[in-house]
Amino acid sequence: MKLYNYFRSSASFRVRIAFELKGLPYEYLPVHLVKGEHRQEAYTAVSASQLVPTLETDAGELLSQSMAIIEYLDETHPEPALLPRDALGRARVRALAQLIACEIHPLNNLRVLKYLTRELKVDEATKNTWYRHWVRDGLEKLEQELARLPAGTYCYGDTPTLADCCLVPQIFNGKRFEVDFGGLTRTMAAFDACMRHPAFQKAQPSNCPDNEA
Amino acid sequence: MKLYNYFRSSASFRVRIAFELKGLPYEYLPVHLVKGEHRQEAYTAVSASQLVPTLETDAGELLSQSMAIIEYLDETHPEPALLPRDALGRARVRALAQLIACEIHPLNNLRVLKYLTRELKVDEATKNTWYRHWVRDGLEKLEQELARLPAGTYCYGDTPTLADCCLVPQIFNGKRFEVDFGGLTRTMAAFDACMRHPAFQKAQPSNCPDNEA
Repeated sequence: MKLYNYFRSSASFRVRIAFELKGLPYEYLPVHLVKGEHRQEAYTAVSASQLVPTLETDAGELLSQSMAIIEYLDETHPEPALLPRDALGRARVRALAQLIACEIHPLNNLRVLKYLTRELKVDEATKNTWYRHWVRDGLEKLEQELARLPAGTYCYGDTPTLADCCLVPQIFNGKRFEVDFGGLTRTMAAFDACMRHPAFQKAQPSNCPDNEA
Repeated sequence: MKLYNYFRSSASFRVRIAFELKGLPYEYLPVHLVKGEHRQEAYTAVSASQLVPTLETDAGELLSQSMAIIEYLDETHPEPALLPRDALGRARVRALAQLIACEIHPLNNLRVLKYLTRELKVDEATKNTWYRHWVRDGLEKLEQELARLPAGTYCYGDTPTLADCCLVPQIFNGKRFEVDFGGLTRTMAAFDACMRHPAFQKAQPSNCPDNEA
């Protein structure tokens, strides 16, 4: 399989984690978002929506949207499972993942930050306050949700799930923008557990071939 | 089952459509977002993240996040199916749903529009331009994705899926803000097909008990 992605893209990072958790090899195809490569013809032929990541299956099918890709990997390569076996557990894990992917991340991606600067003419400090506000607000919601679940090593239970694939990139992004993580006990305990797991280490931006840091 | 929701909330509307498509009865429990009822104790006891909708199962389990709730309903009440039987089809339908739920809707929900007005001090026209920009931008992405799929009555194939549950509320919201839908041929054909289906009609805001229009 091939993964079109970008080292710093949170959505890309989620899928890389899933690949590493499953121990599946993949070809890493970088798409440089800051240089605008996602809008160039070579990539629009791959991704109609000009978003990363895109998974290209061995049969040549092109799949978009990180959570959908991870569920596809989980269905086609079931072990180790990234979703619980029971419908209730799956609903809980999907809800945690979507709380990050639908409530936090969309407000802070590159094209939104550009709109704030270019169209709304906000200054750097205001942009950073916006960023931190939505990450903090969303992570507080996540913390409240986690606090009502049984204790576990990771977001849900004692094995990594789709929720952890979404959590870790969000925390990485938050760290870049110096978000305050104080009081997010369950959230940061799950993050710390993930970062002790080699799959999360291997998938992180600093280990990507297109990393520029 | 009980559904805590709000007539005008897109995420609530998605779940109502799923209930109607499956012909499942449910108790409608209104949470008035504009009056701030989602932040009051009666509801925070139900929803840790203070978001609508929340599904309360017959066993008393509380489930959040609309797409997760719809997949739960689909897994526990499989007919008619809202996701294809094959992994590739499921990936495509989830990706279309997530393109709406992760790329369009989060930028335009009530708390974001409030932040624009209260914190960034933008005027009404600028707020509406923001709104229309992200809906139009996202729907153009959706149109491009749909254009690469085989033709069908709905977003994916000839029966309604999770993708249509997400599409219809987004178009309703776009109409309220007078978004230009010109050129979105596949998208609007799917929307029109949905609106000829009684389930989508029954679930719409104007048919909700808390509708104020």
